[in-house]
Amino acid sequence: MSTEFEIIRRYFARPARTALLGVGDDCALVRTRAGTTLAVSTDMMIAGTHFFADAEADTLGHKALAVNLSDLAAMGAHPRWALLALALPRANGKWIAAFARGFLRLARRFGAELIGGDTTRGPLAICVTVIGEVPRQLALRRDAARAGDDIWVSGATGEAALGLAHLEGRVGLEGKARQACLERLHAPEPRVALGLRLRGLAHSAIDVSDGLLADLGHIARASGVAAELRWEDIPRAPAIASCGNAALAKRCVLAGGDDYELVFTAPASLRSRIVAAGKKARVLVTAIGTVVAGKPAVRVRDARGKPVTTSRAGFDHFA
Amino acid sequence: MSTEFEIIRRYFARPARTALLGVGDDCALVRTRAGTTLAVSTDMMIAGTHFFADAEADTLGHKALAVNLSDLAAMGAHPRWALLALALPRANGKWIAAFARGFLRLARRFGAELIGGDTTRGPLAICVTVIGEVPRQLALRRDAARAGDDIWVSGATGEAALGLAHLEGRVGLEGKARQACLERLHAPEPRVALGLRLRGLAHSAIDVSDGLLADLGHIARASGVAAELRWEDIPRAPAIASCGNAALAKRCVLAGGDDYELVFTAPASLRSRIVAAGKKARVLVTAIGTVVAGKPAVRVRDARGKPVTTSRAGFDHFA
Repeated sequence: MSTEFEIIRRYFARPARTALLGVGDDCALVRTRAGTTLAVSTDMMIAGTHFFADAEADTLGHKALAVNLSDLAAMGAHPRWALLALALPRANGKWIAAFARGFLRLARRFGAELIGGDTTRGPLAICVTVIGEVPRQLALRRDAARAGDDIWVSGATGEAALGLAHLEGRVGLEGKARQACLERLHAPEPRVALGLRLRGLAHSAIDVSDGLLADLGHIARASGVAAELRWEDIPRAPAIASCGNAALAKRCVLAGGDDYELVFTAPASLRSRIVAAGKKARVLVTAIGTVVAGKPAVRVRDARGKPVTTSRAGFDHFA
Repeated sequence: MSTEFEIIRRYFARPARTALLGVGDDCALVRTRAGTTLAVSTDMMIAGTHFFADAEADTLGHKALAVNLSDLAAMGAHPRWALLALALPRANGKWIAAFARGFLRLARRFGAELIGGDTTRGPLAICVTVIGEVPRQLALRRDAARAGDDIWVSGATGEAALGLAHLEGRVGLEGKARQACLERLHAPEPRVALGLRLRGLAHSAIDVSDGLLADLGHIARASGVAAELRWEDIPRAPAIASCGNAALAKRCVLAGGDDYELVFTAPASLRSRIVAAGKKARVLVTAIGTVVAGKPAVRVRDARGKPVTTSRAGFDHFA
């Protein structure tokens, strides 16, 4: 059986790349580039709350980092470093090796160096902290949407929630639809490249972790504006379009969490530049609504102006 | 019942002080001082592993931050920012308010600003990340002890482990001894001021979280040296001296975790400056041994040169 220190050394310690001092001391030491601002975020994932306890270790390692990189993406920040705290019921070498593989593979892809962490015994829990860099004036905040802005979304929302519905037996997916939804649920792709391209273009941004309406609601509240969405313009992934349950599909698109797409607002004058930014970042971007002056709210209307509603506003752990 | 967002707003969100953007966006934004290096550390505490599930929320908030500030202290770093991820079985406003009080009080005392975090539902788990600053050349690392260095300890070790032994019924403490040990166990004092004073003096440092021998062993291994301790010179807190169980007392002093004192090494020529640094930081510092060349090891001998051993080497979550 491995000891705590062997676990760290064997599976997580790598020679420091950009860090002055990486895994293995009381603190990691890193040097920042002159004049940049640090973007810092932390997210905790708990077995039974965020994932099934028997989830694949490899994809869990991926997802734990992905949801954090997504926060950097939503800020327009460049990933630099990550810290990982891991509580494990037991020291299962095979599981930890697979988890580390998924985590470190994604970290490498996005240039985030694992510089520190903590391993301890307990119910399976994963807490990741990421540090990125962004020039202060270019950070994509929640509180800077302006009346007249277009509202955009990257990719399409709803697949992760539909995948969860499938796993819970509320819908039966097959073939490519099943694969797409489960991959989205287990191994979301953080939109880091898009976030970087939106610097200087988007007024505000957030990632869709709690649901399109809920997360856009955070922008509306923080910016003191209302958001009006055009139901027909909101993109549908093929799996959503073909799932055969319109009410569930609508709920997934508007209120499903865990997609990790970006929702952002930008001046209408920049429409073609936003589309070009999406192309360069290799992700579809779609204008789905407009920011208007008024009390913070998110409204969805169909082509005839009729309100589109759904039974669930978005995910809240304590609602 | 509070929602996740109300919990954050009510108990943890404060107007940003040093941060450009604090709690409430995808990331916090902070600016570092030119030319400094960041020291970053994360520690997770789990109910049942690190504390009893019915622990006082106020002291738990204190301890969760204290153990992280202790890592900054052991690096000689100046605390700047903290992030807090919290998994809670339920949204109990009274509990959260007390936890936040303990956490934020300590944060204020040490100038660490809470800039972000995460709240979620799950078995009680607390993950804190701290960021400090230290000039690169002055950071107190584990790997820089040299043969001939004195070995020093701040305060005295063993009280926290003795307090735990009391709570588990393995010893019966009373009066001041009981109070001192439980206070040490629940509300350790991070030696931040001492760590800052040791910059430029100490060659290496670590905080005692796993036990004096185990943590000094980390310095020995990382530095490629051996540590020789003089048993009679290791300071005993009054509660240790009077507990009436010599074997337990010895085990607590040498192998008890959770004290969060600093163990450090420094050239013998700096002895009086180390004592002065301790005085300025208002904590006793005691020379307890010597670093010698040789295979990494930690040896303890009594005044007659006889080896002093104990049954437990230190705490390891997966040993």
